[in-house]
Amino acid sequence: MTSTTSGTDLRRTVESFWAAAERRDWAAFAETLAEDVVYELPQTRERIRGRERYVEFNRDYPGDWHARIERIVAEPGFTGESWRPGQVVSWIHVTVGLEEMYAISFFTGDADGRIVAITDFWPEPYEPPAGREHLVERY
Amino acid sequence: MTSTTSGTDLRRTVESFWAAAERRDWAAFAETLAEDVVYELPQTRERIRGRERYVEFNRDYPGDWHARIERIVAEPGFTGESWRPGQVVSWIHVTVGLEEMYAISFFTGDADGRIVAITDFWPEPYEPPAGREHLVERY
Repeated sequence: MTSTTSGTDLRRTVESFWAAAERRDWAAFAETLAEDVVYELPQTRERIRGRERYVEFNRDYPGDWHARIERIVAEPGFTGESWRPGQVVSWIHVTVGLEEMYAISFFTGDADGRIVAITDFWPEPYEPPAGREHLVERY
Repeated sequence: MTSTTSGTDLRRTVESFWAAAERRDWAAFAETLAEDVVYELPQTRERIRGRERYVEFNRDYPGDWHARIERIVAEPGFTGESWRPGQVVSWIHVTVGLEEMYAISFFTGDADGRIVAITDFWPEPYEPPAGREHLVERY
């Protein structure tokens, strides 16, 4: 039997993940995570293994940060014999006081619909290189 | 009638987009794009409107750059009355000579399965802040 429910579930799980983080509900946050969740930050080449450490990392993160979801893209997984994990990408808008930034996070689900892998990117503003002004507008 | 084919199609379109860019086949590249495609770079707040300008932007992009797909996440759209666009996110690994970087691109499809919107992020490496060494490993 093959169904495509797991992708939808993972989308909901990721929505719960961000909602729980926003209200600092670390018990609800932990419930979205597999015990052996792995978190990676390719920009710093840091990795955190395990739910306990990853919850601590978020709970202790400094600053009065707030996150809202800008966009979610969810790819359904498959259950049953042809099992394939669901994948979700979230693009969130984060404020820390007056500072604003974006984060892009890739989530992978496990068979129970919990998050088993997260890879985060934190792109920073930069000045556009010269030479393409004839093609672009600024916003 | 509702089907979920458009997401799959957009995944293929995005694969063609990157393959055409990699071999500098600008005719094939243009075929993946809607005429009114809009390209945005939130980090520089630049926007390019229209297929012609966007192809020119890529064709004239300096450096011997090469892109390979690291990961794709594709959310099916719906056709028919409950039409909803397909969405795809690609995470690509880019090299320009010895320099290596990542790009994360959000694609939206139109009813014909062409790319009508692209939003790119180019995250740069940075040094991890102090105080979380007890939770992380480096890789």
